[in-house]
Amino acid sequence: MIFYQLFEAESSTYTYLLADEASREAIVIDPVLETLERDLKLISELGLNLQWVVDTHVHADHITSAAQLRKRLGAKTCVSKNANISCADRFLSEGDTLSFGSCKLNVLTTPGHTDSCISLTCDGMIFTGDVLLIRGTGRTDFQQGSAEKMYHSITQKIFTLPDDTKIYPGHDYKGMSYSTVALEKKFNPRIGIEKSYEDFKKIMSELHLAQPKKIEIAVAANLLCGDKLN
Amino acid sequence: MIFYQLFEAESSTYTYLLADEASREAIVIDPVLETLERDLKLISELGLNLQWVVDTHVHADHITSAAQLRKRLGAKTCVSKNANISCADRFLSEGDTLSFGSCKLNVLTTPGHTDSCISLTCDGMIFTGDVLLIRGTGRTDFQQGSAEKMYHSITQKIFTLPDDTKIYPGHDYKGMSYSTVALEKKFNPRIGIEKSYEDFKKIMSELHLAQPKKIEIAVAANLLCGDKLN
Repeated sequence: MIFYQLFEAESSTYTYLLADEASREAIVIDPVLETLERDLKLISELGLNLQWVVDTHVHADHITSAAQLRKRLGAKTCVSKNANISCADRFLSEGDTLSFGSCKLNVLTTPGHTDSCISLTCDGMIFTGDVLLIRGTGRTDFQQGSAEKMYHSITQKIFTLPDDTKIYPGHDYKGMSYSTVALEKKFNPRIGIEKSYEDFKKIMSELHLAQPKKIEIAVAANLLCGDKLN
Repeated sequence: MIFYQLFEAESSTYTYLLADEASREAIVIDPVLETLERDLKLISELGLNLQWVVDTHVHADHITSAAQLRKRLGAKTCVSKNANISCADRFLSEGDTLSFGSCKLNVLTTPGHTDSCISLTCDGMIFTGDVLLIRGTGRTDFQQGSAEKMYHSITQKIFTLPDDTKIYPGHDYKGMSYSTVALEKKFNPRIGIEKSYEDFKKIMSELHLAQPKKIEIAVAANLLCGDKLN
């Protein structure tokens, strides 16, 4: 399988491009409007046929390029059925699969950062969006965030995957590229092995984070699959 | 093999951590002083025993953490024998190998960005430092840079590797993580398949780049393997 991890520096977002080597059918996870041209160029140079664009949730810190990728390449856009938006082509539920050539991504619903967060598993990897980050988690203080749901999503779903499953998050702010289930179980300071739900809830309630700079325009645009600017 | 690509945002530098899974012996390529604590923490969490630290050249845009990693973990520091510095523990030449457990890195001398640039090959990958970048190259206008030597290093050495060899550069400024020999041969706008040496020389002579902001302190510190601040 062809696999690229791509980075957008302003919002520290990771976009993922996966493709079936033989058929060239491809999928993109969490693409960012600012890096649309880079991504289009790479997809073209690799000779890929983009089938699907998935947003793991309605992002508050950047605008998705999903609608642009649909417009430019004919890909179908996908979000959770819980996202409460109508612009996507496909609405995903637990257990759904997204096929591209002989490869497929499996959908896990992992609410907590938002109510509509999904994670995607494929071939020993999990793409966790903003639910589980490397030695951290997404925030739970807006957009239907819930420490209780996040604790359940991480400990009862993500942490039940094999220990060597590679975790590819939606963001990293320290230049780390991936983690594993074993490492996060052991070393995640919010939700690792020594943290109870009470510990986690307390940590999350005391973060006092500033609002994302772009939250108003990002959420409004993302409720239209990023189609605002056309 | 354990493999991590790590990013330092200020200088857009990639640091690589490779380790033999069974013995836990490890090697670091191009570590950056600003991310020393992150790297020490990761090495500790992974339970690795750092054997070697390699700088692919004397960097002009960031200070290496080689001396610090030697001091803190007992690793041996390595640079090209052409680097004309005395602080390292080992001086590398074409064909040398750096072993860590059952894995090894092979040294290719690839001058052009500086006279002492090396690339390192391992298991279908090449770490090209600042010689070959993704859809670009390092600059050739200071520190004994030479378009002629760079053209030779890239076309006669790196481009003779198998087409599917993954290229991991010392920097990327657009959020790309790796390339392949086939892709750079085809799409590199400076030195891809349709570019002659005359084309390349002209492109390099017309770049007119600003000096790196940190060049004076970085080079002075790196000539001491990054030991300046102690």
